[in-house]
Amino acid sequence: MRYSRIALAGRPVWGVVEDGLVHVLDGSPLDGPVTRTNDRVPLDGASFLPPVVPPVFYAVGFNYRGHVAEHGKLAPQRPEVGYRATSALTGHGCPIIRPAGVNGRFEAEGEVVAVIGRTVKKATRQEAQESVFGWTIGNDVSAREWQHADRTFWRSKNSDTFKPMGPWIDTDVNPLDQTTTVRIDGTAAATFATGDMIFDPFDYIVETTKYITLHPGDVLWMGADSTVQLEPGSTVDIEISGIGALSNPVLEES
Amino acid sequence: MRYSRIALAGRPVWGVVEDGLVHVLDGSPLDGPVTRTNDRVPLDGASFLPPVVPPVFYAVGFNYRGHVAEHGKLAPQRPEVGYRATSALTGHGCPIIRPAGVNGRFEAEGEVVAVIGRTVKKATRQEAQESVFGWTIGNDVSAREWQHADRTFWRSKNSDTFKPMGPWIDTDVNPLDQTTTVRIDGTAAATFATGDMIFDPFDYIVETTKYITLHPGDVLWMGADSTVQLEPGSTVDIEISGIGALSNPVLEES
Repeated sequence: MRYSRIALAGRPVWGVVEDGLVHVLDGSPLDGPVTRTNDRVPLDGASFLPPVVPPVFYAVGFNYRGHVAEHGKLAPQRPEVGYRATSALTGHGCPIIRPAGVNGRFEAEGEVVAVIGRTVKKATRQEAQESVFGWTIGNDVSAREWQHADRTFWRSKNSDTFKPMGPWIDTDVNPLDQTTTVRIDGTAAATFATGDMIFDPFDYIVETTKYITLHPGDVLWMGADSTVQLEPGSTVDIEISGIGALSNPVLEES
Repeated sequence: MRYSRIALAGRPVWGVVEDGLVHVLDGSPLDGPVTRTNDRVPLDGASFLPPVVPPVFYAVGFNYRGHVAEHGKLAPQRPEVGYRATSALTGHGCPIIRPAGVNGRFEAEGEVVAVIGRTVKKATRQEAQESVFGWTIGNDVSAREWQHADRTFWRSKNSDTFKPMGPWIDTDVNPLDQTTTVRIDGTAAATFATGDMIFDPFDYIVETTKYITLHPGDVLWMGADSTVQLEPGSTVDIEISGIGALSNPVLEES
C-alpha cells in the first residue's frame, strides 16, 4: 500500500495512492484503522504535503562508505542518530529555495526514510523491523559553507524548504534491496545501492531505543552515498526503485 | 496570565493557573481565543504535562560566560541555535530517570524558555519581541560522558525524561530581569542572573528567522550559567523568579 498526504480544499488529508488516483481517507493510518471517503484526486493534479510531520525527525550522518570517504571522515563505529527540524520539510513538487546568502556547494542527498508505526523502546532486532510502518524518500539538502562555518547544522541543513520528503509512504517495499538514483533535469547524476549502508535502519532503531522511545510518525533518514550539486532553475529527482520519485524544482530566493 | 497543560481523565488539556487552581480551557491559547470550561483542578493535585509540545525544539548551547569558562570553550560569536527532541520532554513533578549506563557527571542546567506565539520569518527585533507568547522553565539534563563520547547529543541530552519543562507559561514576566536558582532537596546549589546572557532570546529569534520560519508552540531554551550534579533519590528544583519552580525527583533506571 502507498499512503500520501495532500492538501484538499486547503486542509491536509491522508490518501491511498492507487490506479493514478489519491483515494482520500477519513483519518491517519498511523492513528488506527481508516476507511476511504468518496473523495478522489488525480495524482497528476495532487498537491503533495510531506507524507508525515514527524514528532521527532531523526537523521543519520555518515552511513555509506562513499560519503564518508568524500568528506575525509572515519566511518562511524556505532549507529548514532542526529536530528533535523520539521520546519524545513516540504512536499513532492514544491520548490527548494536557495537562500540569498548561500555560496559554494549547495547539494542534494538522496535518502531512504523509515517511518515508525508504533511506540517502541528497548527494541530487539525483530521488534525494530516490526516497528516500521513504511518507507519514503528524503532529500537532505545541505549548504556546505554554512555546514563548515557554523557550530550546528541549524541553517546548513534546516533552512526553510531544505527537507523535501515524499511523495508517499510505501508499506511493502524492502528498502535494502533497491537502487537510489539522483537526477538533475532528468539526467542521472548519482546512483548507488540503497541497502549498501554501514548500519541499517534496524541497527539504528535497536541502538536508539536503548535510551529513547520512538513514536508513530517519527522518521529516520538513512543517509546518502553521494552528493549532487543543485543549481537554481533545475529540477532534482530522487528515485528509489520500488518506492517512487521525489521531484523538486530549485529556485533562488527573491 | 499563566497557562499550563495537565492530564484530565487521561487526556491533555490547557488551563489558566489562578488562585491555586487550574481553570481548564476549551482549547489551546496558541491556536486562538479560548474560554474557561467549568472544570477546575487544585494545583496541588494537578498532573502536569510539558506546557507545550513544540513543533520544533530549539536550544542554545553556550550562552552564559560562566558555562563557557567551565567547559574551556570560546564564547560564541553569533547566536546559533541547536535542537533537542520532544521525545525527551516530561512534566513538572515527573521523575528524571538516570539510565543504567550513565557514569560520571549527570547534571541539571536550569534554563529560561521562550515559547513562540506566532508565525514569524525575517523578524526585526521588535517583531521578535512580539513573537514570544510567554516564558517557562526547562531543565537541560545532560549525561556528560555520553556528550563527550558521542558524535551528537542524541542520548546525552535526549534520552527519555531528560527534558523537564514547566510548570506553566507566564505571559507577563520580563525574563531578563530575573534570578535563576537550582536547588537540590531544597538547598541552593547554583544561582545566576537569568538575563546575563551573551545573546538574548530576541537576538536568537532575529538570527534564526533569517533562514527559518518559527511557528506557534516552538520553544527556545536559553542555556544555563551553571551546572549541578544530580543524584538518584534527590529532587531538583529550577526556580526562576517571576515565573515559578520546576521540580522533578531523580530516580535510577530499574
